[in-house]
Amino acid sequence: MSSFFEILKKSPNSNARIGKIITNHGEISTPAFIFCGTKATIKSILPEQLYSANTQIILSNTYHLMLQPGPDIVAKNKGLQNFTQWKGPMMTDSGGYQIFSLGYGSVSEEIKGKNTNIKRKSLIKISEEGASFRNYLNGDRVFLSPERSIELQRYFGADLIFVLDECTPFNVSKKYTENSMHLSHRWAKRCLKSFNSSFDTFEKNSGSSGIQSLYGIIQGGVYEDLRKVACEETCSQGYDGLAIGGSLGGTKDQMHEIFSFCENIVDKKKPMHVLGIGGIDDILHGVSCGYDTFDCVSPTRIARHGIMLSKSKIKGFNLNNSKFKDDHSCIDEDCIVPEINKFTKSYIHHLLKSNEILGMVILSIYNIWFMNNFFQEIRNKIQQDQFENYKKEILSQLSK
Amino acid sequence: MSSFFEILKKSPNSNARIGKIITNHGEISTPAFIFCGTKATIKSILPEQLYSANTQIILSNTYHLMLQPGPDIVAKNKGLQNFTQWKGPMMTDSGGYQIFSLGYGSVSEEIKGKNTNIKRKSLIKISEEGASFRNYLNGDRVFLSPERSIELQRYFGADLIFVLDECTPFNVSKKYTENSMHLSHRWAKRCLKSFNSSFDTFEKNSGSSGIQSLYGIIQGGVYEDLRKVACEETCSQGYDGLAIGGSLGGTKDQMHEIFSFCENIVDKKKPMHVLGIGGIDDILHGVSCGYDTFDCVSPTRIARHGIMLSKSKIKGFNLNNSKFKDDHSCIDEDCIVPEINKFTKSYIHHLLKSNEILGMVILSIYNIWFMNNFFQEIRNKIQQDQFENYKKEILSQLSK
Repeated sequence: MSSFFEILKKSPNSNARIGKIITNHGEISTPAFIFCGTKATIKSILPEQLYSANTQIILSNTYHLMLQPGPDIVAKNKGLQNFTQWKGPMMTDSGGYQIFSLGYGSVSEEIKGKNTNIKRKSLIKISEEGASFRNYLNGDRVFLSPERSIELQRYFGADLIFVLDECTPFNVSKKYTENSMHLSHRWAKRCLKSFNSSFDTFEKNSGSSGIQSLYGIIQGGVYEDLRKVACEETCSQGYDGLAIGGSLGGTKDQMHEIFSFCENIVDKKKPMHVLGIGGIDDILHGVSCGYDTFDCVSPTRIARHGIMLSKSKIKGFNLNNSKFKDDHSCIDEDCIVPEINKFTKSYIHHLLKSNEILGMVILSIYNIWFMNNFFQEIRNKIQQDQFENYKKEILSQLSK
Repeated sequence: MSSFFEILKKSPNSNARIGKIITNHGEISTPAFIFCGTKATIKSILPEQLYSANTQIILSNTYHLMLQPGPDIVAKNKGLQNFTQWKGPMMTDSGGYQIFSLGYGSVSEEIKGKNTNIKRKSLIKISEEGASFRNYLNGDRVFLSPERSIELQRYFGADLIFVLDECTPFNVSKKYTENSMHLSHRWAKRCLKSFNSSFDTFEKNSGSSGIQSLYGIIQGGVYEDLRKVACEETCSQGYDGLAIGGSLGGTKDQMHEIFSFCENIVDKKKPMHVLGIGGIDDILHGVSCGYDTFDCVSPTRIARHGIMLSKSKIKGFNLNNSKFKDDHSCIDEDCIVPEINKFTKSYIHHLLKSNEILGMVILSIYNIWFMNNFFQEIRNKIQQDQFENYKKEILSQLSK
């Protein structure tokens, strides 16, 4: 199944590359951004709007969907694409990321080293067999094993699926990180075995001849020796794709070092995904290292807080700011999405000040278009052997 | 300016009629429904989606827009159509309805006779000159006179605008209703004078040669003698259109009696609007009496609570109900809106259960399409001389 990824062009002076991931629901031109539709919806956005904004692929979360609406409802719809009416490629994560957020609060804060909260371990119990946790909807005890995660992802029917791992946090010891990594490796092998033995069931349940591709996840935290072990172990198995997960350190430099270190060890023929990273600068570093796909909630989450992304300001522009009250320029002259590109910043500011959902909707569509357009530019620049210059130019103009 | 309305067809066995209202932003085929975009947006919905759902006209509220974003911001955008990017016809109310809700809580409950709350009159002071109230955003004292209401509506630039009135509640004495009606008549004349003298200023401010049409409002509560006085007074002035406002009684029968009583007195050459009424049964009675347009927040408001409109159930269907969890039929086989007509009830139920905004968005678009389609059917039936049969058929199949 490794033919599902093709490398079309390599950058002459970095590991940046153009490729394509071939799925039963269409091809993904890489490097590509994957938008988070946690509960089987990109919040407030219709599939038609995703198409208008040139979206290639979205993801949903096994953890949320196993609890609501449950796998049987999705399976009766022949999978997530029919259920959500998003007809392009989809990814599902394994549930690992969310389950561990019960233990550590916001995992995204934690894996970036910003969280020093006391662990609330009582909500989650991890054993060799799997993870046991409370259903956040009704308090029931729920058990998620590697086999169950694969079974669920078979029901959901996304094109790209993930092994169950423990998303290792930042504020733990090296010993904890090492033990956790080995546990994730054992879980991953069980996932792969389950994946390989469940194709017939999947085909029967889904009524689909669609092929799913399984990604392995590289853990090891901020420790180069552990990341090396994890890269070698994960590459030695038959995963279709690879992902870099767990803590990426406490600073952006540390994150970029881990990007670079791992990419130099792994099997470069496989597509490489970065879990949970969406900063403009981080993406440029990641692409330069050879990573192909990135997912993060941030483009749509910050849109719902009034922020429009920009290549000149790392945190984007907050349209709640009163200086936009009287700014009658359109949202972005380059934006080609007809549903939103005529709105003025003044109008969006008014919607945000009035707590009107439409403000979030417009900015969500804008930020989705922005990321898709940014990745299109990245692919164009790699094609033209200009990516490293482009990266330097963007990084130099990005203000904090 | 009375040529802005043409009657194209009259029903042989009732006052129902087909007409068209001609505005600078297009024609409105009547009978028609007008959707409420209070704060210069139909909540959560893009203009493109309104077009897809065959929307003819929307309204915004002078009261809300005078406070946020303020008339200068809208005027700098050359009016509401440029500001909101809704390019079809628009209506603005005068501010009367909202201001009086400060005194009476929910005016819509009050005018339908359901409210017995003690009046909170301290928030609003009414004098001969106008209404003084607190800005709900910052507590400032704000004054709205008939002249100011017209000036504001000139700035906003909608096609159909309203005189300032006191929206008389249900639970007041006949004497109060009578005095209030006379005050509204004096205010209305001041509005008309202001309207007639402000065209040049409007043209200069808006940069538009668009003509606005002014509607007078018939008050008088549930009292036939007062309604008669109000009809005669309002018809004797040079308003382009007429609207029926204030309390319509405590029961649906009382409402339908007032519909019928007024319609038999008024000048039938002018378009007749019903303020704040959106029930399927009420609309059928209103159309039968000869009313041409109706506005109400209900189709989009109930959508945000999970309810889809229906011609077989007066309160619609609540998709939060667990029986829809496993209902994999599409939302409505007759619905032709491509953005939403493939979604299953099961998916919408899931979105509502997950508190996902997209559930509200889908149902808002559906209910907007439903009302537009309902009015298209009404026009077709009048055209075919079948309206009264259609009305009986729908009313007989409507369950409570």
